[in-house]
Amino acid sequence: MVSDSPQKRIGVGVLGCGNVGSALIALLQERQTAIAQRTGLKLDVVRVAVRNAARDRSVALADGVLTADAAAVVNDPRVDIVVELIGGIEPARELVSNALELGKPVVTGNKELLANYGAELFAAADAAQVDLLFEAAVGGGIPLIRPLSESLAAEPVRRVMGIVNGTTNYILSQMTEHGTSYQDALADAQSLGYAEQDPTADVEGFDAASKASIIATVAFGARVPAGSVYREGISSVGPADIAFARRLGYAIKLLAIAERVGHIGGQPELAVRVHPAMVPADHPLAAVRDSFNAVFIEGDAVGELMLYGRGAGGRPTASAVLGDLIDAAGNWGRGTWTPIGDRGEAVICSIDDLESEFYINMEVLDRPGVLAAVAGVFGRHGVSIRSMEQEGLGDQARLVFITHEAAERDVQATLGDLRELDSVRGVPALLRVVSR
Amino acid sequence: MVSDSPQKRIGVGVLGCGNVGSALIALLQERQTAIAQRTGLKLDVVRVAVRNAARDRSVALADGVLTADAAAVVNDPRVDIVVELIGGIEPARELVSNALELGKPVVTGNKELLANYGAELFAAADAAQVDLLFEAAVGGGIPLIRPLSESLAAEPVRRVMGIVNGTTNYILSQMTEHGTSYQDALADAQSLGYAEQDPTADVEGFDAASKASIIATVAFGARVPAGSVYREGISSVGPADIAFARRLGYAIKLLAIAERVGHIGGQPELAVRVHPAMVPADHPLAAVRDSFNAVFIEGDAVGELMLYGRGAGGRPTASAVLGDLIDAAGNWGRGTWTPIGDRGEAVICSIDDLESEFYINMEVLDRPGVLAAVAGVFGRHGVSIRSMEQEGLGDQARLVFITHEAAERDVQATLGDLRELDSVRGVPALLRVVSR
Repeated sequence: MVSDSPQKRIGVGVLGCGNVGSALIALLQERQTAIAQRTGLKLDVVRVAVRNAARDRSVALADGVLTADAAAVVNDPRVDIVVELIGGIEPARELVSNALELGKPVVTGNKELLANYGAELFAAADAAQVDLLFEAAVGGGIPLIRPLSESLAAEPVRRVMGIVNGTTNYILSQMTEHGTSYQDALADAQSLGYAEQDPTADVEGFDAASKASIIATVAFGARVPAGSVYREGISSVGPADIAFARRLGYAIKLLAIAERVGHIGGQPELAVRVHPAMVPADHPLAAVRDSFNAVFIEGDAVGELMLYGRGAGGRPTASAVLGDLIDAAGNWGRGTWTPIGDRGEAVICSIDDLESEFYINMEVLDRPGVLAAVAGVFGRHGVSIRSMEQEGLGDQARLVFITHEAAERDVQATLGDLRELDSVRGVPALLRVVSR
Repeated sequence: MVSDSPQKRIGVGVLGCGNVGSALIALLQERQTAIAQRTGLKLDVVRVAVRNAARDRSVALADGVLTADAAAVVNDPRVDIVVELIGGIEPARELVSNALELGKPVVTGNKELLANYGAELFAAADAAQVDLLFEAAVGGGIPLIRPLSESLAAEPVRRVMGIVNGTTNYILSQMTEHGTSYQDALADAQSLGYAEQDPTADVEGFDAASKASIIATVAFGARVPAGSVYREGISSVGPADIAFARRLGYAIKLLAIAERVGHIGGQPELAVRVHPAMVPADHPLAAVRDSFNAVFIEGDAVGELMLYGRGAGGRPTASAVLGDLIDAAGNWGRGTWTPIGDRGEAVICSIDDLESEFYINMEVLDRPGVLAAVAGVFGRHGVSIRSMEQEGLGDQARLVFITHEAAERDVQATLGDLRELDSVRGVPALLRVVSR
């Protein structure tokens, strides 16, 4: 038994003691003996930085462990490994940088930090020859970063498509399964604690875009800054779109998509975007319901993979942090680390150059000749129509189109011209259709 | 860029050049530059052992690389890492042992070897302080071993349920979706190359039982020898069972299940078994179709996870082998390894002591009083009935029961007594119902 060999004591400093931090500390207390038996490592939480050290916590900590001084935790010589769970850019960035400079491995769940300052922090970790692990930053408890960076280290990944935001998946699932309106589903998500009072980061796709940047960087081995991710949210998706999608054999999901479209000068050319999309009903992603997350990976050799689970929540996310912490502690104990490697910046393909099928739902005047005028605009831009349905009468009249594969630029130009037509009252939804 | 740093050349010896071996060699050739750029490792296949060195291969290898002498590959001083893809017990066991004794890391995809000699080989790897990696042994290209052993290293796993045999999942999917008979679906699988001419290892659950042994050992950190896995195949599942299951809201799947039922003397008490089971239609495993595999993990902290993908095939499996090979090569280059640790043997709970709901389909004589007699037998053994349906008339008369939770031992005793009744012509199917 490993438990017979001398145990290595490793001091852990935790920055932030919210949902994930307190779940992590509780898990470490529950599992300390089992971890020591299995790995020979005794993980001791020696300092925990919180905003307000006087507040009551759900976890029991010895006197002197809690402090409001995060820098003191990083600098404490008893702290061997730093776990950063503060979130946001500052002071997280400075604290993580300082820990790495001091030669302390860092485990973080901070997607915003990595999406915006990943390159600088990866370089700092490699320079210091210590681990910087971040499984919890994308997909909560789902093992995703490790499979992508290790199991698929040499896999020629073609495309990664993820449902990486539980709030929006919950809202879209409610709309699909119960015919709920967007506003009601959002209010529901807020009352369940899935959505913030200001839901912008979730529903407008900012959270998913940060995760898309990290997924793309790891899957394709080339840096994708958060700012280069195209982003659209779900607030314009209406019950009519959900109903049409269903009837046509699709589910509407907010997807983070990172795709290899070519190579330029030794670097992959990537298209990375977040937008609502029509997913074929028999695609594994279509069955991902409620607030679950899943990431679907297509590789040249491995074929199709999907990793599914709880993308958020204190305990699932803490489980991912703990996996990283044990890995980092094991490496630290053996005097080694896993290099990340400078990846160079990916070449980003503009969404204008991408091709896909499109779903377009427009409100029109209910009078003769409208279809001819609308079809004429599609034709002028070379966008060919696969199917059309007219729905409703009078004020409710709509035309719903699915196009054949067309370039985004041509479809956007088509929409621009359509909006100029007197007979078109509005184009409430444009959705891209996922190809298999 | 990592590519600017000096590359470390690593000699790879491959034992076996069938489907997976030749796919691995082709992948290594395609990806050598990309791997070197990303990891700084130049992986060179220096020797390949085959049964017949004169036969034509689909891969191009330099003169002198192919040999029929597998021991010579292991012993070759230019071979730093050994990849074992021969399968079966001998000579694989001896070759892997010898490689480890020589201090050479080993990557293997050999489920039979690990299920039967895992303990001995894990100890040899730890004694030699080198890696023994086996991602490809379960689930083909699906990252499974790494997530279980690393990401979930400290996760209190409650239950793992896997569809780990593609042949049987293909057969059951055909029966479910097209109403095909078992024999026709099997013949179909054979003509597609999914099933062997002698399909026993697949359809009787031997293949899945080896994988269950490995999954349980990794997930629970305690040895589960292959011989302690309870095993039933799918050859007794008929179209009537599939149809009943569907009507009742279930899909029939061959599951490998490893479950923690308690702790005895510091070791987990586990129930590990392979049998066809009724899976609720809205469970993620029910949607795993065709020859795909998936493993569903339930943990105390992480909640529900599912890992889905291609469980077999040359290129998917080679992709998993390559992930391990890069990991082992990186560790070897840095002079380190990932210890497995002696896990002690798990305490195995007999299937007789397990409780679940049961589906029982029996052929009965079509005459009054039969139900009373049958129900009396259930009652005598304390097995309570949740639902009953009578189907068919005359020679086709059947009773189909779903029980409440009951102990396997009591249900088996019930069946024994039922078979003695004059009015019962046969009990063709007993299926366990998966609880959520």
